[in-house]
Amino acid sequence: MIKVALIGCGGMMPLPNRYLTSMLFSYNGKMVLVDCGEGTQVSLKLLKWGFKAIEVICFTHYHADHIAGLPGLLLTIGNSGRTAPLTIIGPKGLLDVIRGLTIICPNIPFELRLMEIYEKEQVFEIMEDFYIYTIDVEHTIPCVAYTIEIKRRRKFNPDKARKQNIPMFLWNRLHKGEEVVFEDKVFTPNMVLGEKRKGIKISYCTDTRPIECLVDFVKEADLFICEGMYGEDESIDKAMANKHMLFSEAALLAKKANVKELWLTHYSPALKEPAIFLERSRNIFKNTLLGEDRMIKTLNFK
Amino acid sequence: MIKVALIGCGGMMPLPNRYLTSMLFSYNGKMVLVDCGEGTQVSLKLLKWGFKAIEVICFTHYHADHIAGLPGLLLTIGNSGRTAPLTIIGPKGLLDVIRGLTIICPNIPFELRLMEIYEKEQVFEIMEDFYIYTIDVEHTIPCVAYTIEIKRRRKFNPDKARKQNIPMFLWNRLHKGEEVVFEDKVFTPNMVLGEKRKGIKISYCTDTRPIECLVDFVKEADLFICEGMYGEDESIDKAMANKHMLFSEAALLAKKANVKELWLTHYSPALKEPAIFLERSRNIFKNTLLGEDRMIKTLNFK
Repeated sequence: MIKVALIGCGGMMPLPNRYLTSMLFSYNGKMVLVDCGEGTQVSLKLLKWGFKAIEVICFTHYHADHIAGLPGLLLTIGNSGRTAPLTIIGPKGLLDVIRGLTIICPNIPFELRLMEIYEKEQVFEIMEDFYIYTIDVEHTIPCVAYTIEIKRRRKFNPDKARKQNIPMFLWNRLHKGEEVVFEDKVFTPNMVLGEKRKGIKISYCTDTRPIECLVDFVKEADLFICEGMYGEDESIDKAMANKHMLFSEAALLAKKANVKELWLTHYSPALKEPAIFLERSRNIFKNTLLGEDRMIKTLNFK
Repeated sequence: MIKVALIGCGGMMPLPNRYLTSMLFSYNGKMVLVDCGEGTQVSLKLLKWGFKAIEVICFTHYHADHIAGLPGLLLTIGNSGRTAPLTIIGPKGLLDVIRGLTIICPNIPFELRLMEIYEKEQVFEIMEDFYIYTIDVEHTIPCVAYTIEIKRRRKFNPDKARKQNIPMFLWNRLHKGEEVVFEDKVFTPNMVLGEKRKGIKISYCTDTRPIECLVDFVKEADLFICEGMYGEDESIDKAMANKHMLFSEAALLAKKANVKELWLTHYSPALKEPAIFLERSRNIFKNTLLGEDRMIKTLNFK
């Protein structure tokens, strides 16, 4: 089972009734956190999914509202009893930023494995069938969007395998998609596997302008969490200057990419009532939802 | 008028219903903040005293629960329109810590004036009659306690000055406490000033063991804000190991120093109901209050 929680829906600064934008992804007892602003650990505590199973923390960029909560979170993860290494992924500059921030939490009881993104598009294999993809986006400083994908293997057909006299000790490798040569015979996955099956894809995209390459990057995502810094279309000049998006721009991205569901997030502190602008977004992309702190979605393979 | 607010009363980590320990002091339109953990800016927002007038930020030490909120606060102060320099005071290591943390808030629109404490006891004059004192305390890393004092000048008696034929242009210097020589005559403040008058003294002390030198440092404070990490006396071993205080130790300090009022703060996250242990502290020092988020006290000269 896959669960996704939007930990906060605010941008720029934490507010009394709105935590900063961040996402927690949970699969098979392992969790990935994307972004960690000031107060993220408090919203995580309210969510009650625990801290110890956070395996990876990803950063879109290094503005304080996306990363200032890291030192406190690392200490809290340490207090939860974690001793296993924790991976941190982020754009260029990761090492300097982590070195700077961890001055105030020097004795974390686990190793940090820092993975700095160095390509325009990159893939990280977290474990078998569990991938994190990044792509450069357009903000005022280097920034990336994330897609998390759980791939689903094609079904293995044991009857087919038996009929073709494929030795049983080769089945697992064929199931994983390997081609195997045994006693001068070539066995291919296609000989024993069923049709391709859709996995689960979640995309998370903030802070950026709605650049064209994002359409492919979030294509047909089951859930697309996207910034909507400004509700009204009249803020387009501000959005362009500050490298953020309007609600309507996020909705248009969702429509072009044919995603299943869009959650808006990263509201400007000045945007007190996002609901006023929801209808407009729904006219562009029907399945738009307003992000709220600790909004949850459970996803299962079809 | 002098106002003091306890911004939060928690220790170690921010909780959903308890902000981290921090104090805001306000006098004559200028504010001093002592400590700034994760979320302090949110509690400050709820307090509604504004951000722009924060002139000085003091740090007791550099554990994350006392400083992780700094980058976000600096940005919020910037957004409030401040362009005037802001002073930061803290123990040895200040420059490295600030350099590390400000990586994630590089474009603050005002100058930071860093004043690293280099003596066991030190005094900073913020403006005329407005002083901040520090003293080294005993924690697991270098840590200081703070006393803020607003001094009150002795009253100037113009009748006495006239009777002694003291030229009027010397009055101000005499009022300030200077001895003045004019036309071979010596004029001393005692010739024109009334009796000594008590100012206002506020002391803030966390995280430390209740070392003896604190008694003098907080002597007769109008308000003594002191950590009480553990409520029950049975936690003495933990308190000694982690270099913190029991409620009863804070109360004993208050009693020895003959302060007017004690506020307990910096509760352990495990201390869900501090009220259970209040009576015991009051048996030692009667005027003990349990600190709460955004508890306020207004003080006036007698």
